[in-house]
Amino acid sequence: MRQYFLILADAELELVPTRIVGERCVLNSARARNKVPEKMMLDASHHHPAFGKLPDGDRRGRPDIAHMFLLLSLDSDVNAEGRLRVFIHTRNDDVVAVKPETRLPPNYIRFVGLIEQLFDQHVVPSRENALLELRQKVPLATLVEALKPDSVIVLDPAGERTPLEGAIASAEGERVVIIMGGFSKGTFSSDMRKLKARRISLGERMLKVWTVSSKALRALEAGESVPEPSPKPTKKKPAKSTAKKSSGARRARKKPEA
Amino acid sequence: MRQYFLILADAELELVPTRIVGERCVLNSARARNKVPEKMMLDASHHHPAFGKLPDGDRRGRPDIAHMFLLLSLDSDVNAEGRLRVFIHTRNDDVVAVKPETRLPPNYIRFVGLIEQLFDQHVVPSRENALLELRQKVPLATLVEALKPDSVIVLDPAGERTPLEGAIASAEGERVVIIMGGFSKGTFSSDMRKLKARRISLGERMLKVWTVSSKALRALEAGESVPEPSPKPTKKKPAKSTAKKSSGARRARKKPEA
Repeated sequence: MRQYFLILADAELELVPTRIVGERCVLNSARARNKVPEKMMLDASHHHPAFGKLPDGDRRGRPDIAHMFLLLSLDSDVNAEGRLRVFIHTRNDDVVAVKPETRLPPNYIRFVGLIEQLFDQHVVPSRENALLELRQKVPLATLVEALKPDSVIVLDPAGERTPLEGAIASAEGERVVIIMGGFSKGTFSSDMRKLKARRISLGERMLKVWTVSSKALRALEAGESVPEPSPKPTKKKPAKSTAKKSSGARRARKKPEA
Repeated sequence: MRQYFLILADAELELVPTRIVGERCVLNSARARNKVPEKMMLDASHHHPAFGKLPDGDRRGRPDIAHMFLLLSLDSDVNAEGRLRVFIHTRNDDVVAVKPETRLPPNYIRFVGLIEQLFDQHVVPSRENALLELRQKVPLATLVEALKPDSVIVLDPAGERTPLEGAIASAEGERVVIIMGGFSKGTFSSDMRKLKARRISLGERMLKVWTVSSKALRALEAGESVPEPSPKPTKKKPAKSTAKKSSGARRARKKPEA
């Protein structure tokens, strides 16, 4: 049984950078939320007035994108079947690993609070029940390598224009990594050349990240029912490791509201 | 060219009911947001302590569901092609009509503010540029009838278990209404028997509304490429009316940030 790894890469998810902690809009939002400024997530809808002082100010501070991506991913069929692992990789090479059984708050403000707790404690809700885990200084290529993929697909507007379902169906092996951008503008800031990936475009129209997430998840669901092209001998992982992975990912659904 | 109408029905979107405007949690959130309590949207994540005093208290106050539904719908391929109209119908028979070219705020708090403005003024941002419009006392059956559909599909866990793509491909006529529930628990509160609809189930697992939205939108995109079963003579609308609809819906994209 195939295991999929879905990575939101170069996501615009970060704490308020030191350079702007003293800005009025930051201080105001910290006061309103009763938070220390440097322990808040950067949020374009509150901190935009200070973004002129940051490089890439036109795309930073988008926890909403990560939120939508996770809500859609965690409720997908492949996740319910225990065949999906979800990661957020950020512009600062922070990586958030999310357990398949996690039930995220659908409310945005609660989600932001949870991520702030994660960036503070590196694991939530607790070390014993680590539903979300933060690992720091993990470049995208390192994360991908650690997942030991048989094939890697990158969703990239500059990629090959072919149906994603078919690309998934014809991907080699049992461990398939799919990478999509976690930003609203521009291109990947990570070095993608190291990945040896097949780059696929979903079309000419610029899509919101939630649409890309939705299309990618539905393609994973459909991909396996698409007839495979003539089967090549693929490098197979030992069955044991895959079986272990998937049983570990099986749904518990014991209400661990993160 | 087919026109689709996607309705989020019995959505849990409403102002704070009079019965609980004096509750402490409501007054607190009104003070924090500098709002009059009765002009705020009911929100389970702030007002839950008062929900014991409301019927259906376990499912009410979910503007986040409407938000996700609209963000996904408005960025879909069918909407970009001018072939989708989106409506939210609420538990109180309020109907929100959303113009296809609307660019909604992805930030939840800004979205709630926009909907509060809509419930106050009945049109936003202005009467001249009515991107969102509120019509009151419109039962679901009345809304559907006004759309003059050739066929109606209801997504209902108790419906027929068949692929939605196929049901869309084989739906009659050029005006197809698709209805999905806008609540997290229970069933439709509207009387669905009046609709003469085909009821389709997406499967046994209870899905979040954003997953249903995602699957419905992708099925609309795919449905037309699925081979139609033996073509029956369908009642056709005069070409004129359809043409007018679709050209009116064409993308303007002149940055009318609502």
